[in-house]
Amino acid sequence: MHNNQFIQQAKNFIPVKIISTGAALPEGKLTSEELDRKLNKPNGYCLKRSGIEYRYHADYQLNQADLAAQALNDALIRNDILPESIDLLICASALKVQALPYTAAHILAASTLPDKTATFDVNVSCVSFITALNLAACLLNSGSYKRIAIVAAELASRGLNWEDEESSLIFGDGAACAIVERGDGQSGILSFLQETYPAGVDFCQIKAGGTRRNLRAGMEDHDFLFQMDGKPLFRLASSLIEVFMSKLLQLSGLRLEDIATVVPHQASHLSLEHMRKRLKIANEALIDIYRFRGNQVGASIPSALHEAVITSRFQANNPAMLVGTAAGLTFAGMIVLP
Amino acid sequence: MHNNQFIQQAKNFIPVKIISTGAALPEGKLTSEELDRKLNKPNGYCLKRSGIEYRYHADYQLNQADLAAQALNDALIRNDILPESIDLLICASALKVQALPYTAAHILAASTLPDKTATFDVNVSCVSFITALNLAACLLNSGSYKRIAIVAAELASRGLNWEDEESSLIFGDGAACAIVERGDGQSGILSFLQETYPAGVDFCQIKAGGTRRNLRAGMEDHDFLFQMDGKPLFRLASSLIEVFMSKLLQLSGLRLEDIATVVPHQASHLSLEHMRKRLKIANEALIDIYRFRGNQVGASIPSALHEAVITSRFQANNPAMLVGTAAGLTFAGMIVLP
Repeated sequence: MHNNQFIQQAKNFIPVKIISTGAALPEGKLTSEELDRKLNKPNGYCLKRSGIEYRYHADYQLNQADLAAQALNDALIRNDILPESIDLLICASALKVQALPYTAAHILAASTLPDKTATFDVNVSCVSFITALNLAACLLNSGSYKRIAIVAAELASRGLNWEDEESSLIFGDGAACAIVERGDGQSGILSFLQETYPAGVDFCQIKAGGTRRNLRAGMEDHDFLFQMDGKPLFRLASSLIEVFMSKLLQLSGLRLEDIATVVPHQASHLSLEHMRKRLKIANEALIDIYRFRGNQVGASIPSALHEAVITSRFQANNPAMLVGTAAGLTFAGMIVLP
Repeated sequence: MHNNQFIQQAKNFIPVKIISTGAALPEGKLTSEELDRKLNKPNGYCLKRSGIEYRYHADYQLNQADLAAQALNDALIRNDILPESIDLLICASALKVQALPYTAAHILAASTLPDKTATFDVNVSCVSFITALNLAACLLNSGSYKRIAIVAAELASRGLNWEDEESSLIFGDGAACAIVERGDGQSGILSFLQETYPAGVDFCQIKAGGTRRNLRAGMEDHDFLFQMDGKPLFRLASSLIEVFMSKLLQLSGLRLEDIATVVPHQASHLSLEHMRKRLKIANEALIDIYRFRGNQVGASIPSALHEAVITSRFQANNPAMLVGTAAGLTFAGMIVLP
């Protein structure tokens, strides 16, 4: 089928065109063998338990905004896009540089984009990028902006508790970017869906960083580190994802067989295996960069999208599904026509 | 003039209707007299220096999300709106509850809105509400949602450094909410403008709370407290605001005389006086709640909007201007037809 046939079936098509993507990684690479030694585990333990060969961890000097600016720059250079042609910069990271001001202002300061560029942060934990892409499409169609850069950069390594295997074995750092325009109406969003289930709000968290745990209200060291309740999180997510994905498909007017590429959040080895089995799709149709990146929080989905683009798995007439589960607990999904 | 005449003059009108507003304040009230005693200052010093009679400071047990839920509830009750009719909850606060997950998920958990409601945070420091209102309008017009609640709640008191007069004398806590629909096309946004000048990114900040200053990268007590460079901030903002407001007006097709009500960020006594003089508007046309609230960070603009609504200064055929300067340094402005 061609894009225009898909468009006719969608309940609420929103035109948008991804004109470039990019990514960035910090220098420091942490292999599972190194981690076995660091944690006094037998050879092969970390690889087997996490499914990760290596991931990237920045040193403590690297600024999150600089990493974001690198990913933005990569997206600009790959398709000869002038920095001054971007009229809005959206930061779609789960983690911030600091409590105030917001991260997009820091990224603008670190970037080659000019003064006056509009900026804002959107935050939906690990699925921020999906929501940001829908917002960008709506803004472009309203005439508010002409060309928008969406950037996610995460330094999850700053919040790792090495005494907690569940979180410390999976998170990696990184950044990614997508640049979008309205396009000619032949590409865009066939369906978008987001749902939050607050029963899971405490299942994955970092308690410090805001008004809850701080110098005035009190804080302890562990408040600065990831706290994960993996089992109940996975249980709640698994019980709801089926209905969620059916709804997402139904809104698009597509069947599962119409989806050529799935760009999932790289949450965990288990979550990716679960999706592979459930969707019954060819191995190469599921973008899986987990083994060499780990879970990059909000940077995972745009990094996986960038991988899809550079490996020719994001192309016209081939609908793609972006989907993920995030701390909140929040599901977000989008079926998009490249 | 009538709304439809104004609409014809706008370059890019976006329909949206504010169907209710609400606000909430914590119990604790801090008067300037109490503060004089606390800081060992002569009687009247704090009032004279800050222009504030009293503001509200929550005790350290109060949760930011609960205060947000109170403001949301106020907006629901005032116009008999069913919680289940809200299909998106946007948090437009500058400060977060915690580093992860995002604040809107916490607000949903504290609210009477049902499970599955979509949620996200948008952050542009003190002008978050203006950007959120533009996003909400774009989402409503794209068909993504039908009725959106925008909530801002701030507990700036958790970050006060009592040794720094510039910040500790002005910030107050509070929350406010606006509920919006697409409406019938007779009300909406005549113009919206946002600009970020990263030269001012460090002029108002809290360094902790993210990847920059924390348990791993290092942190000190003062990283958790507001740091303000008031003079250069005011100088940079003053040098740019004129051109910014002219542009905002030009996009709307209106003249300054057409603006019936100005809803400014309640940044400081000085900033409000500056605006009053510059705009040459009647006293009652400028919404000024600063004397009894202080600077409520991202909650100031929606709190002032709520004040405009309940004092009948936000009405059809009377264009209103929302405008503010925020840590970033970012300007945001909107001319809206009630």
